[in-house]
Amino acid sequence: MDDFTFQCATKIIFGKGTENNVGEETKRFSNKILLHYGKESIKKSGLYDRITKSLKQVGISYVELSGVVPNPRLSLVKNGIELCKENKIDFILAVGGGSVIDSAKAIAVGVYHDGDVWDFFSKGIQPKKALPIGVVLTIPAAGSEASNASVITNEEIHRKSAFLSELVRPKFAILNPELTFTLPKFQTACGIADMMAHVFERYFTNSADVDLTDKLCEASLRSIIKNARIVIANQQNYDARANIMWASTLAHNGLLGTGRIEDWASHGIEHELSAFYDIAHGAGLAVIFPAWMNYVYKHDVKRFAQFAKEVWMINESDDEKAALAAIEHTRLFFKEIGLPTTLKELHINNEKFEQMAKRCEGRGSFVKLTKEDIIKIYEIALG
Amino acid sequence: MDDFTFQCATKIIFGKGTENNVGEETKRFSNKILLHYGKESIKKSGLYDRITKSLKQVGISYVELSGVVPNPRLSLVKNGIELCKENKIDFILAVGGGSVIDSAKAIAVGVYHDGDVWDFFSKGIQPKKALPIGVVLTIPAAGSEASNASVITNEEIHRKSAFLSELVRPKFAILNPELTFTLPKFQTACGIADMMAHVFERYFTNSADVDLTDKLCEASLRSIIKNARIVIANQQNYDARANIMWASTLAHNGLLGTGRIEDWASHGIEHELSAFYDIAHGAGLAVIFPAWMNYVYKHDVKRFAQFAKEVWMINESDDEKAALAAIEHTRLFFKEIGLPTTLKELHINNEKFEQMAKRCEGRGSFVKLTKEDIIKIYEIALG
Repeated sequence: MDDFTFQCATKIIFGKGTENNVGEETKRFSNKILLHYGKESIKKSGLYDRITKSLKQVGISYVELSGVVPNPRLSLVKNGIELCKENKIDFILAVGGGSVIDSAKAIAVGVYHDGDVWDFFSKGIQPKKALPIGVVLTIPAAGSEASNASVITNEEIHRKSAFLSELVRPKFAILNPELTFTLPKFQTACGIADMMAHVFERYFTNSADVDLTDKLCEASLRSIIKNARIVIANQQNYDARANIMWASTLAHNGLLGTGRIEDWASHGIEHELSAFYDIAHGAGLAVIFPAWMNYVYKHDVKRFAQFAKEVWMINESDDEKAALAAIEHTRLFFKEIGLPTTLKELHINNEKFEQMAKRCEGRGSFVKLTKEDIIKIYEIALG
Repeated sequence: MDDFTFQCATKIIFGKGTENNVGEETKRFSNKILLHYGKESIKKSGLYDRITKSLKQVGISYVELSGVVPNPRLSLVKNGIELCKENKIDFILAVGGGSVIDSAKAIAVGVYHDGDVWDFFSKGIQPKKALPIGVVLTIPAAGSEASNASVITNEEIHRKSAFLSELVRPKFAILNPELTFTLPKFQTACGIADMMAHVFERYFTNSADVDLTDKLCEASLRSIIKNARIVIANQQNYDARANIMWASTLAHNGLLGTGRIEDWASHGIEHELSAFYDIAHGAGLAVIFPAWMNYVYKHDVKRFAQFAKEVWMINESDDEKAALAAIEHTRLFFKEIGLPTTLKELHINNEKFEQMAKRCEGRGSFVKLTKEDIIKIYEIALG
């Protein structure tokens, strides 16, 4: 087991109606906040009213910034930074999924940065200060509600990049599974692929003797798979929605990576797809991960055989056969829940493979990938 | 799944040599601390020297209070409170296992309490303020290094009681598995029983549809069992020690109880044994838990059958037979690692059953136990 430092201080408030206490939770930090969200759908659903009512009840004033889109844009982040500065905002409440939360995190560090906020994403500069953030989660997927990461798309240069900082880990995250009842099937499935991918990125490691986190990863994946099937069949099953929602947070709060080196090649490879083609991140991952697995499994057939046995319950004594069966199970599972598993289904051809691969070469630690490796993975993914 | 709030902000610093940075970590909180520990063994091992060197390097002065014993005593807690007040201490560094940490937690709240610190344990009074605490862990067992609980023995009245408060959750916990290489086999085994018991208390629940935490509990138990066998055979196996150490923290930081009602009857029943007979807590749990399981399994045979299948890999289609086999596996496992599994082995007879049972009646939520129930459990445990 490798040495590690782990701290996730985000307060999780989980359950029915928990969004009605958002005012009380926010009050501990601020009286004047930025209310950041995506589409107007939170108004139709009544969520907006419940949240603003709770804020008003405790005397919190808010400035609104809506319009966050999937693969959240740098331009909106910059608007948010100006808005916070102009209005002397000292807290951001993100209401939405990973895109809204990531956008809030970028605003949070941009407010205290003299230069271009993109510096954090492109130059590896570490922020020194950030506005505190709170979350009301509506999409279980990205795990941003308790993570230290933010991923933003610079739409002008087709770049999707991340930065990591403990400063942006949300102070609290309100998780009400009922808020996810109305998520369309496709978006639900994308979220499932995203959270599974977060476990995969940690599970496939060269770190030896990490039995506990291996087993916790396998347990999480089995629970996600089991409850995903329930949720796709019955979108209003509260308990299945709840298990999925809590799993999405645990998949990415750092716990499952303790004691092990993580990979993150597939996320890099997918980010290029999202950046150029603006596809749903989860759909891109459902295409890329089985292709990546096919390309790298020979690096550690035993690990893939363990994945077969412990996650997919494949009873096969030949490690290579077990590994290949597990990869096929993974692909078929994504297909089963309604996700694409080839680039062709996403109307993506080989035109930009070279350009995209060049931009993410060197990614990966389970297997460090060259440009040529990545092109081959894109080719496998083509279908 | 039940609603819940979960927050564990303790910073975990895990790995080889990590105790050498204790000064840096402590410095964030204080320059004048209480250094709290148990026996002089930390001086013989060199740990005391490494810690005091690290503290001195960053200019931290310390007052020492040693002498914490297993089933830590109220009298020493009171000494600690006076010492902190006299010396204007504003941080406690606990170096040891659960007893030292629990003692530190009691001192931490006692410093700000006008009355008797025992009030927190006996009257359910909630502390309003506490000194911050840091930990260098030497015994993986109690999970106190990241928990909100403290258990203290009032030796005058033979009472062992707990209080819970988020205020006493340690700010940081330094976990170096190498520090556990020299733990005697019996103490290692007691720790293993203790951490398994912390998972059992959460696993056996009436909360329905808590699939994710069920699976995380099962994964933790399987990893503890696997690595316990390695550690008992080879006490200097770093990776097995590391998996055990991290499991002991996760077993009791609250994660495995999210979304479910916990039981805690067996801990109550054992605390009476420790209070009257001053036995090792882990040894008491190894005796009590199988007896408790035998007494209550009929309340939910299916859950015990799941325990059989997922933790002990028992392939038995008859639920009752599977349940009984799992309980026997649990008992035999404790025996295998060198623990007592009957009260007779602890030289305890039925003399105080009535008195002890009266003091913990009403405990339990999986099955709420009457005095008569508890006497029957003690009788099963007698052997």
